[in-house]
Amino acid sequence: MLRRDATTHWEGDLMSGKGSVLLETSRAAEFGISFGSRISESGGHTSPEELIAAAHSACLAMNMSRVLATKRLVATSIDVNAAVTLDRAQGGGIDISRVALTLRAVVPAVSAERFHDLATLAALTCPVSRALTGTIVTLDADLEGRYPR
Amino acid sequence: MLRRDATTHWEGDLMSGKGSVLLETSRAAEFGISFGSRISESGGHTSPEELIAAAHSACLAMNMSRVLATKRLVATSIDVNAAVTLDRAQGGGIDISRVALTLRAVVPAVSAERFHDLATLAALTCPVSRALTGTIVTLDADLEGRYPR
Repeated sequence: MLRRDATTHWEGDLMSGKGSVLLETSRAAEFGISFGSRISESGGHTSPEELIAAAHSACLAMNMSRVLATKRLVATSIDVNAAVTLDRAQGGGIDISRVALTLRAVVPAVSAERFHDLATLAALTCPVSRALTGTIVTLDADLEGRYPR
Repeated sequence: MLRRDATTHWEGDLMSGKGSVLLETSRAAEFGISFGSRISESGGHTSPEELIAAAHSACLAMNMSRVLATKRLVATSIDVNAAVTLDRAQGGGIDISRVALTLRAVVPAVSAERFHDLATLAALTCPVSRALTGTIVTLDADLEGRYPR
């Protein structure tokens, strides 16, 4: 059992207030945040949705390498994009309506069909996917490059 | 409708491989990641779990300011810690088993009871909480400071 912490400090109301988010365990970064940069142009500011995207893309990339290993396959490279969509919710709030995952990998000695099956398994079993069951998660996976098989 | 992207590049297997995560929309940061720093000492590296914690703490802080505003209340300050617990999953993988939220706020002219109700509503309705229905989310909320009421 292991714990990872982050903290946010906020002052003021939603529209004119502002805050900062600290990656507390690693101290890898501290970010300024505001609601305006969350729901319109980012202006160089991160947001809860971009941080969810980062968590999900990192989790899937690692899990894909794990799933490949169960078939004695090793990726030369794995690239994962996560696109989180924020929509207006019923009742006027906002809603994370979708996470679209795009995975491209260079994997020697695997067929396209096998690869698709393994990528689907990786997306279904990654810990972040299993936590994010309150939103829709989609996967577009393809091999990149050509290898003898 | 609005989109936030992040990307991860990974090379190699799970245990000895390594990667990097880019906050693609804002370009606010790029992080090195590894599985070793995810499941033992962070060594200054972030992880999917810490990024989820960051997303959740930021989301709750903003949503608390929104919920307070519906009662014409404005927080002088809101501090939210999110602690994400990673456990061994059944079958040998890893699992995000819990997100423990701790909220402390300075809010003039609100009773402790009213404040608890509003904090609970904020935690239940924040978009990240509503997306993270695959894990357990707990809330510990208290007023900080004393105000005439």
